Amino acid sequence: MLASLKNSVLWTTLGLVGGTIFKYFTYKGNSNQEVLEILMFNELSIKCPNRHFKNKPSDGCNKYCSRRHIQQIIQQIDRAVYCIDIAIYTFTNVELLAAFYRALSRGVVIRVVTDPEMVCTSGSKILSLFRSGAEVRMPETTAMMHHKFLVVDEESRVKHLLQLKDRQTKPQPYFGIMFYGSANWTSQGFNGNWENGIITSDKLLLNQFQSEFDRMWESFKSYSPPNKTNGLSNQCT
Amino acid sequence: MLASLKNSVLWTTLGLVGGTIFKYFTYKGNSNQEVLEILMFNELSIKCPNRHFKNKPSDGCNKYCSRRHIQQIIQQIDRAVYCIDIAIYTFTNVELLAAFYRALSRGVVIRVVTDPEMVCTSGSKILSLFRSGAEVRMPETTAMMHHKFLVVDEESRVKHLLQLKDRQTKPQPYFGIMFYGSANWTSQGFNGNWENGIITSDKLLLNQFQSEFDRMWESFKSYSPPNKTNGLSNQCT
Repeated sequence: MLASLKNSVLWTTLGLVGGTIFKYFTYKGNSNQEVLEILMFNELSIKCPNRHFKNKPSDGCNKYCSRRHIQQIIQQIDRAVYCIDIAIYTFTNVELLAAFYRALSRGVVIRVVTDPEMVCTSGSKILSLFRSGAEVRMPETTAMMHHKFLVVDEESRVKHLLQLKDRQTKPQPYFGIMFYGSANWTSQGFNGNWENGIITSDKLLLNQFQSEFDRMWESFKSYSPPNKTNGLSNQCT
Repeated sequence: MLASLKNSVLWTTLGLVGGTIFKYFTYKGNSNQEVLEILMFNELSIKCPNRHFKNKPSDGCNKYCSRRHIQQIIQQIDRAVYCIDIAIYTFTNVELLAAFYRALSRGVVIRVVTDPEMVCTSGSKILSLFRSGAEVRMPETTAMMHHKFLVVDEESRVKHLLQLKDRQTKPQPYFGIMFYGSANWTSQGFNGNWENGIITSDKLLLNQFQSEFDRMWESFKSYSPPNKTNGLSNQCT
């Protein structure tokens, strides 16, 4: 009787430990997929002159290095397989523009919502993006479309795009990720101001930002350019 | 032999299930403490006129309701026990100001870093906060202090404040939380623009934002007002 009880306790203990380890590893397995990078831009972000103004890797610079931060954002754009949705108040950064060009050339669908006043300011890259194949929409009010975020390959959006595609096309692996924060994508935003930026794969955040993007996209529909040759240019005359 | 094996399998299975349940409940126990609220401001945020312009509870309005969003932010300010650190580009919202007044009257230490140009604009509440006991600092450059965040009772900051206090004072329970996003704390930011705001208790985010706040606080030291009667006013002449 005592031996049987001992046996039971032993196996139960082993089982409890096993179950806990099992749960621990399955949880760790998911969290390994998660990305959270917090980028702070400040007066030190441009204090690595050699690395900022030459085409060198940015390793070894301080942790606020804007060149490194921009590279971290570009890495997310470069991993896009299906789609990038951009909501940006002001966008003049040429490195991000080049990454969006690369994405477009890979067949990634890019949609942009932006601010109707800022789209016409000096250095804005919205028109360049539009001319290269991105769709662009904006509201028609004096209120500001003040978001600064991009969402890459969010699950619901990818599924929607896959439904529209040829069903014989084999789905590719993809990874949902987003970048958002206080910074506009400008020289001042990345190279001088005190700003924050977050890169995250948090599914709730991605889902909510994607949802709001989709809602804006529908809501701004009537302000989309009628055609590629003169549509967006007309907004700036 | 077979009975013993059966017994072992039974107890192991029970243990595995027990261990998994145990881990599940302990994990749920932690996650219950976690807060993540995503606030979207858009053209619908001011579409509940009765609830926006009368002093009524905001329940029943649409999920973008700006009055409800502002109440959610205020709830975080109202829970502050020890400290609130604010980094804000533009601040004119009177409801948030009232919540900061309440915090100051509870003995909460409030520090503010802001932008030297925006502090002097019409409707700015920074001077009001300063005159009520908040400490204020700002950089002295043409670059913008463009953050829009507040951190409430972050652990390292609370520990630092407790070290400065009378050791016989019994520590109070506190909960670290922060609010950040694209929106300035203005009428336009909360009532018209397309903006995002996040309320989170994520420890990594809190720690990183607190760290950057502390670094700015030291970096902006020389621009702090010399005294309460004329210090900050001098910045606006």
